[in-house]
Amino acid sequence: MRTVNEKIEQLRTLMRDKGIDVYYIPNEDDHLSPEYTADYFKCKYFMSEFEGAGCMIITQDFAGLWTDGRYFTQAESDLKGTCIELMRMRQPGVPAPMAFLVEQTPENGCLGFDGHVVSAADTVMLKKALKKKNAKIHLDDDLVGILWEKERPAMPEEPLYVLPKKYTGETPAERIRRVREAMKKKGADVLVLTTLEDPCWLLNVRGNDIECTPVAYVFAIVTHRAVYYYVDKKRITDAVKKHFKKYKVTVRPYQGMRKDLEKLQNKTIWADMRSFNAIDYSRISTENQIINESSPILAFRACKNAAEIRNTRHAHVKDGVAMVKFLHWLKTNVGKIPMTEISAQDRLYAFREEGEGYIEPSFPTISAYKGNAAMLHYSASEKSNAVIHPEGFLLVDSGGTYFDGTTDITRTIALGPLSEEEKKYFTLVLKGMLALTRAHFLYGTTGNNLDILARGPLWDIDIDYQCGTGHGVGHVLAVHEGPHGIRWGMPANNRANAVLEPGMIVSNEPGVYLPHKLGIRTENELLTVKGKKNFYGQFLHFETLTYCPIDLDAVDTQYLEDVDIQQLNAYHEDVYKTLSPYLEGEVLEWLKEATRRITR
Amino acid sequence: MRTVNEKIEQLRTLMRDKGIDVYYIPNEDDHLSPEYTADYFKCKYFMSEFEGAGCMIITQDFAGLWTDGRYFTQAESDLKGTCIELMRMRQPGVPAPMAFLVEQTPENGCLGFDGHVVSAADTVMLKKALKKKNAKIHLDDDLVGILWEKERPAMPEEPLYVLPKKYTGETPAERIRRVREAMKKKGADVLVLTTLEDPCWLLNVRGNDIECTPVAYVFAIVTHRAVYYYVDKKRITDAVKKHFKKYKVTVRPYQGMRKDLEKLQNKTIWADMRSFNAIDYSRISTENQIINESSPILAFRACKNAAEIRNTRHAHVKDGVAMVKFLHWLKTNVGKIPMTEISAQDRLYAFREEGEGYIEPSFPTISAYKGNAAMLHYSASEKSNAVIHPEGFLLVDSGGTYFDGTTDITRTIALGPLSEEEKKYFTLVLKGMLALTRAHFLYGTTGNNLDILARGPLWDIDIDYQCGTGHGVGHVLAVHEGPHGIRWGMPANNRANAVLEPGMIVSNEPGVYLPHKLGIRTENELLTVKGKKNFYGQFLHFETLTYCPIDLDAVDTQYLEDVDIQQLNAYHEDVYKTLSPYLEGEVLEWLKEATRRITR
Repeated sequence: MRTVNEKIEQLRTLMRDKGIDVYYIPNEDDHLSPEYTADYFKCKYFMSEFEGAGCMIITQDFAGLWTDGRYFTQAESDLKGTCIELMRMRQPGVPAPMAFLVEQTPENGCLGFDGHVVSAADTVMLKKALKKKNAKIHLDDDLVGILWEKERPAMPEEPLYVLPKKYTGETPAERIRRVREAMKKKGADVLVLTTLEDPCWLLNVRGNDIECTPVAYVFAIVTHRAVYYYVDKKRITDAVKKHFKKYKVTVRPYQGMRKDLEKLQNKTIWADMRSFNAIDYSRISTENQIINESSPILAFRACKNAAEIRNTRHAHVKDGVAMVKFLHWLKTNVGKIPMTEISAQDRLYAFREEGEGYIEPSFPTISAYKGNAAMLHYSASEKSNAVIHPEGFLLVDSGGTYFDGTTDITRTIALGPLSEEEKKYFTLVLKGMLALTRAHFLYGTTGNNLDILARGPLWDIDIDYQCGTGHGVGHVLAVHEGPHGIRWGMPANNRANAVLEPGMIVSNEPGVYLPHKLGIRTENELLTVKGKKNFYGQFLHFETLTYCPIDLDAVDTQYLEDVDIQQLNAYHEDVYKTLSPYLEGEVLEWLKEATRRITR
Repeated sequence: MRTVNEKIEQLRTLMRDKGIDVYYIPNEDDHLSPEYTADYFKCKYFMSEFEGAGCMIITQDFAGLWTDGRYFTQAESDLKGTCIELMRMRQPGVPAPMAFLVEQTPENGCLGFDGHVVSAADTVMLKKALKKKNAKIHLDDDLVGILWEKERPAMPEEPLYVLPKKYTGETPAERIRRVREAMKKKGADVLVLTTLEDPCWLLNVRGNDIECTPVAYVFAIVTHRAVYYYVDKKRITDAVKKHFKKYKVTVRPYQGMRKDLEKLQNKTIWADMRSFNAIDYSRISTENQIINESSPILAFRACKNAAEIRNTRHAHVKDGVAMVKFLHWLKTNVGKIPMTEISAQDRLYAFREEGEGYIEPSFPTISAYKGNAAMLHYSASEKSNAVIHPEGFLLVDSGGTYFDGTTDITRTIALGPLSEEEKKYFTLVLKGMLALTRAHFLYGTTGNNLDILARGPLWDIDIDYQCGTGHGVGHVLAVHEGPHGIRWGMPANNRANAVLEPGMIVSNEPGVYLPHKLGIRTENELLTVKGKKNFYGQFLHFETLTYCPIDLDAVDTQYLEDVDIQQLNAYHEDVYKTLSPYLEGEVLEWLKEATRRITR
């Protein structure tokens, strides 16, 4: 096994051979998936052995890894002993990666990257910026791929499957019709679907290509007459073939999209340059007109239809049952039987697997004890796996993908006596979570307008959780999706700030993270629903989809107002009413106690 | 006197003569002042006799007046009996004026407006949109000016004056240096100051050209060597002449800027096309490069320096003393002596005039009784002037410009017994005002992130106040200024959403307005100040600048949380401590009672 430093030296040799001064290794795949990718694309991980989100930039005398606040602690630990410098994104004095690439590329120099995994939008921006320096971009070589060759995982090959209408509520024909209507409205002849989720949603097909996300590596093109689906043909089962025949979908080879793009002449093409890789995009003749906007499917899939909402509710009830069994097991056994972060997590996986229609976890479970929980996207490894004692907090952030829908929930569980400070933080996180849940707002409101409700109680004590408060949740798709979210700051820097529409699901997950000390997060999923419509407009509010008790052993009521206490009691009453029919005996008794009314 | 309908018919005749299909009459002057203008520019008022903010669009078979939620009730009343249709901006189904102009202009047709009072930005946008219809724009004729000729007020002619350094804290030399540094950073050779406020701030000069706003009709151009000041020369007193000589400011005729703009060749010119009128802007040769951004002075003047803050605090104490005298007079005399909206307002003017260094009201006082207060920008006229009885609410929104600084305050006063509903609304408005006041936030936060704190308690009962929560306040300049504000919605539609910086002043003024029934608003001014700086960044919060009791007779504590009651008591304690040294006898006694502690 080569060390990280050896691999970086090998890369530098290749850079010198190719005349590349600065090499950029992003986090994305050839669809610019913003978060999770197939192992084949994990070049940054191969080079740095850091698994979190981020990117690398390498020159002959510098190697840096950029990551955001969620991963600072984890990256510090992973990069120890390597020559890689940790670049803490959005911290004072830390340049943004794109600005750094431009700055580091010398006059008349060369910036390199694999153009399959960098967006057309970024590439255009970089070209423009480097023009002033008379520097060029080399995007035809995947240098990490050259180093990785022998050990590199293959592209996914598993068969695809159809997700029946009873789960999605719409046939592909209906969805294709809606998409074509949107294309007509924009005057688009051709729509290129470059994200992994869009073709899945459009055609009610799913795959198993990315760990914890039921998507498939395909591209699609929609015209007013045809739908083309670009995929490795051996992955199409007879059932999928029949399904595609019914909905007039033409299957083409995965690499075939490039040729079809080359054929387009004088068309108006709707394509999002942020998810279109630079190499494929370059095949489109400039004689065509480009509508460079998010695909209409982004908004369509965010607004769940009645069937998707009904099914998602079912998924959440099953998920709540699994969580209650887990919490009961954890709280009653801690200190009595041996327990680690991983054994606890395995136990939760086992409970979720009992749920009908369960497919897989919707993301890698975070089971983090005490200081480990300060790492926002911690994943217990054999090395880090902490033994759990009857004291402090265990933070468990987990979710399931069911055929019905996708869940995401975090509970922080008191395993024994807590300090006053721990209770204070837990209660202020809860206070923010409750305040956002009871938001009541006019149509036109964005997550940017609401974030302070969840974050405020922590800002009030000079603490920030350094990440968004909430993200959209897909339906049997990615657990993180746009176009909406709950974030603060200048929305220009914020791609996930769409107006909240009825049917949108969003997570509500404030937290407190004190490096090496503790991590607390409480997360419920919220559904946006219509309220009163009057003279002022359409009011909206949230309905909670998640049913699971919040640990009352960690609540200190001195930090709550009356309105918070009433709301918490009402929520717990609801949890008991909803889940109790599915539980019995000791677990049911435990739930009754866990959802008891509290007073000051 | 011609009627409104007659004037519109005359305009239609002129439009036919000139071959204009659609005529646009905006609200602005030749500096695109967003709110108040000299009477000379009040074309929309001349045509419609509606005094609020808004614009008109006229065709041969349509005349419409667009205004926003603050003015709906007032416009309904003012437009009664005219042929003008009220277009309620941002209400469902109501097109935006710009979109309507484009839509109404026929193929091969002609859109007309006076290019002196429409921005270069809007004109470019309209030209682009009309190109598809092969329609043209006629911007050289001020058709309303032709109709108005005989009665039209003259351009302002009063002398200008110097505002000494003891008030502004900086000399023009220091300010010019800061501006040139900003120009250097942007690579600008020339900065064109088109707003009325920018030259006033830069050179510590004020005027009396607009009612209630101490600005002057001048343009200015700053280069790295010179400052040119375009003004009607007879307005320059000897003192101003001496001041300009000291700071090397060259005075040129008001209309002379056009010629100087024509001379610019191959320069990089910083100019905001939103405040640059289309006719002047058209004089700039396209060989120059334009940096189309807000002038750097917008941000400079928003962040008050130490002297401006100290002086503004003094102004607020004087203002609070006047307000307390007024409130005492009002509450003790109502029902005993005859009283109207106008007589009350005159009494308040008289108390303010007792303040040292008082110049004028900072905007037209709103003294509005009962249903009249539902009109957000109501101004009592002889016709509307209501008699005040010892019942219901009087809303008084007023402010003063002092040499020290500018104030803006609203109090809603209970004149007698109130209904349960009135108390509920008053208390929820107060609750929102208090919540925004105690906001505690990280650097990077915008008003868009905070608006919900003030608005939330009203949204919770399905009521909206249909306007922003807060605006920036100038220093001895306009009472409404950017670049910040407290508003909700999509920030793309929102020009006043800058990051909140230390030294920024912003108003905090939620309200409830029920047409024909009541209007409640409580407004304090807030100063943005630094709090703790730690691992997470720089925390900020607000300090209240306004000292004046909030009417406890209208508070129903059942709608407040403990935190609200504590905060209200602390505020009242502060008000008493600050103002009591300046009061005595009966008024002091009254203040003591008005600032009493309350409990549940």
